[in-house]
Amino acid sequence: MKIVRLEDIIGTDRDVEGPGWKSRRLLLKKDGMGFSLHETIIPAGAELHLWYKNHLEAVYCVAGNGSIEDLDTGEVHEIHDGVLYALDNHDRHIVRGGTEDMRLICAFYPPVTGRETHDADGSYELVDDGD
Amino acid sequence: MKIVRLEDIIGTDRDVEGPGWKSRRLLLKKDGMGFSLHETIIPAGAELHLWYKNHLEAVYCVAGNGSIEDLDTGEVHEIHDGVLYALDNHDRHIVRGGTEDMRLICAFYPPVTGRETHDADGSYELVDDGD
Repeated sequence: MKIVRLEDIIGTDRDVEGPGWKSRRLLLKKDGMGFSLHETIIPAGAELHLWYKNHLEAVYCVAGNGSIEDLDTGEVHEIHDGVLYALDNHDRHIVRGGTEDMRLICAFYPPVTGRETHDADGSYELVDDGD
Repeated sequence: MKIVRLEDIIGTDRDVEGPGWKSRRLLLKKDGMGFSLHETIIPAGAELHLWYKNHLEAVYCVAGNGSIEDLDTGEVHEIHDGVLYALDNHDRHIVRGGTEDMRLICAFYPPVTGRETHDADGSYELVDDGD
């Protein structure tokens, strides 16, 4: 059994951020769970263009608000506490922060190693870290 | 892209409960994400003896409080907003509700089909539903 406390992650290499997002990596590939699990904060008013070509991602909002635009269909879905979106088709999308910071719980399959960076097109490359 | 709203799940076959727990299945095996994702509520004062022999499970608390007892080591870990536990070794454990209902986000690998029931020993059996 492994216990992970968000407060112990803050300020470590599991606490990463970029323009318009902060991500705390609760579980990574090396944790051997078959998926990775992240807590991501999207500040109010942020806009992120994303395309996870190599991963499936599910995102569940537990606080705050915002929206997601599906770039394949043009549809925009409101996000708030109790709404999940699943990128089950490597969907290109835009996440927009709303009027309050969004708190999102994100699961990736296959698991993220933690060494990926966002490519210019908003995806994570696949990293083979040997474990 | 798939959008799942908690309010649409309440009262459906994805909203299940037993003594001391309620689980809303946001994503199941048939959703094809590689994991399943659940929102589980543990009422204040509940006690659950669990042993997922066939699944790995990660549980992240986003509200309320309680504790988990590791039956292999006897250790008890406090759970509150921002604490995750990962059952990376099919750990036998007891989850106890605290003074407020606990809101838990749970990911299972392999994904749960939704047709499992808790065995007498607190595990989910593996169900091959052919998809």
